[in-house]
Amino acid sequence: MLNTVLLQTRPRIISAASVVGPKEKAGPLGTFFDDAHDDDMFGQVSFEKAERAMYSRAVSLCAEKAGFRADELDLLVGGDLLNQLITAGYAARGFDIPFLGIYGACSTIAESLALLALLTDAGYVSRSVCAASSHFSSAERQYRLPLEMGGQRPQSAQRTVTGAGAFLVASEGAGPFISAVTIGRVMDFGIKDSTDMGSAMAPAAADTILRFFRDTGDDPADYDSIITGDLGMIGREIAAELMTVKGLDVEKKLYDCGCGIFSPDQDTHAGGSGCGCSSVVMAAHILPKLRSGELKKVLFIATGALMSPTSGLQGESIPAVAHAVRIESERGQGR
Amino acid sequence: MLNTVLLQTRPRIISAASVVGPKEKAGPLGTFFDDAHDDDMFGQVSFEKAERAMYSRAVSLCAEKAGFRADELDLLVGGDLLNQLITAGYAARGFDIPFLGIYGACSTIAESLALLALLTDAGYVSRSVCAASSHFSSAERQYRLPLEMGGQRPQSAQRTVTGAGAFLVASEGAGPFISAVTIGRVMDFGIKDSTDMGSAMAPAAADTILRFFRDTGDDPADYDSIITGDLGMIGREIAAELMTVKGLDVEKKLYDCGCGIFSPDQDTHAGGSGCGCSSVVMAAHILPKLRSGELKKVLFIATGALMSPTSGLQGESIPAVAHAVRIESERGQGR
Repeated sequence: MLNTVLLQTRPRIISAASVVGPKEKAGPLGTFFDDAHDDDMFGQVSFEKAERAMYSRAVSLCAEKAGFRADELDLLVGGDLLNQLITAGYAARGFDIPFLGIYGACSTIAESLALLALLTDAGYVSRSVCAASSHFSSAERQYRLPLEMGGQRPQSAQRTVTGAGAFLVASEGAGPFISAVTIGRVMDFGIKDSTDMGSAMAPAAADTILRFFRDTGDDPADYDSIITGDLGMIGREIAAELMTVKGLDVEKKLYDCGCGIFSPDQDTHAGGSGCGCSSVVMAAHILPKLRSGELKKVLFIATGALMSPTSGLQGESIPAVAHAVRIESERGQGR
Repeated sequence: MLNTVLLQTRPRIISAASVVGPKEKAGPLGTFFDDAHDDDMFGQVSFEKAERAMYSRAVSLCAEKAGFRADELDLLVGGDLLNQLITAGYAARGFDIPFLGIYGACSTIAESLALLALLTDAGYVSRSVCAASSHFSSAERQYRLPLEMGGQRPQSAQRTVTGAGAFLVASEGAGPFISAVTIGRVMDFGIKDSTDMGSAMAPAAADTILRFFRDTGDDPADYDSIITGDLGMIGREIAAELMTVKGLDVEKKLYDCGCGIFSPDQDTHAGGSGCGCSSVVMAAHILPKLRSGELKKVLFIATGALMSPTSGLQGESIPAVAHAVRIESERGQGR
């Protein structure tokens, strides 16, 4: 089994970009996003086209912030939540560079960062971009019910973030670096409630974090933060407990992007979710702190629930996966 | 832009496995498949579960043929055509190894082989498996119409192959080796007819093949075969012509897995398609010839159409991508 890979060459995240919608703009991180829109249609005629516009904008902006055009990069890696990854695939036709489509549900950005870090570390690419997105309204109608129904959602449900985040990974340049990668195993604890995905994803998050600390021998005390993608309030608690019973007490270090992106008064129940959630929180909130040195070392673990509406209708439980990347500030490792 | 990567360490394909349904069993390659079933339900209660059973079987069998259990491998990479990759994701929970979900539509197996070849060449993994699948009946109802309707399909349509193919890529051992990888760009020539995907995919195939020969400076005359995934009869012809006008005449070397898997009297119109098509043809028909030395050097290019039913309903054309791997026999390079 592939254990945690320690990277030797310090692939850097030299820029990142975040594009979000109105609900995210109104949230506690609203002022940090690069491009926060009041209109969740982004000037397009469908939610799917709106999501694609966000994705393209995030990729272009990310390249621009590093002084490049997207077309000058080696590779685009990424995906989204829509069937057949139509966000990423259609966005990719606008960039004249090779494209690798990735699907890991809400773990997509961690899977993409991990792959790019490996390919950069190995010297195959020197400047590449990865991106992931989700859109509340395109996700609702694909995964759940028409918005027009105005259905009530239980308190365990999370709200899909309308957002796209992009990251430029390079072999040279300034920025936080990825120093380790853990590829996750698919875990299924039998949860069947698709309005409680935090519970379904928590075992995968716990498994990957436990594997990471076992593989590296690192002491969690040396980490400023252990950042999960979007477990939400319920999943975060379950993951912490699953790790505690295995002897890893990291509860105080846990920050969940799904818990951070909305405030309790925004009526988003258990928090945010979707590929876009951790992508924009990492791009807008966490990376700046790694760049400034306010954070020295973090472990980022994005989790994905791998079910579909069809698998749910066929009585299946929800498998999940979580991939982890260790990101360190160039301004001093560890503490 | 990432050009063709030449691999230094010769990642080997030490085993491959193919599992197919009755239509494929009845086709011209029927006797070559490892596991050819008369029942396309594979003993399951739904087409989706049947596809998953094929996928799991292909992975297990591939490992077994090389003398391993799947759990002893480093990594599983792969995907399928179903929304949220429920075939690969659910199959992966049965194997206790890390999983990377990939989506490239019918290019999935080439994308997976390319990634595994790179990760193996770089030394991150030493023995890993990739797999891709499709199922005629799960694809029909997801992408097109209920089978019960008995709709007529135009002659340009291809038939989704019911099959799963798996490949074990290793840093050591005996077998054909992957010596180069070209990651494709997303191309869109404006085709909107989802019953003519060969036409939509041909430009991507041509672009990747042209890039490969430009990057490597290789002479197509040194190749025994240039094997496309599933362009079908129409797409194959268009791809050949697109290359001819660019000065690359490879028409006589072209073999298309979609044209090879069914015979004209099987009423499959333009040929086979789906992630499973090139996966099982490569596993059962091409690799044995590379192992025996009957084929010395081939270029394998799988193409994927990246649209969804939703993008079609929204008036979008069909973007496509093609990834290439050069595979050489260990029994002498070139001719």
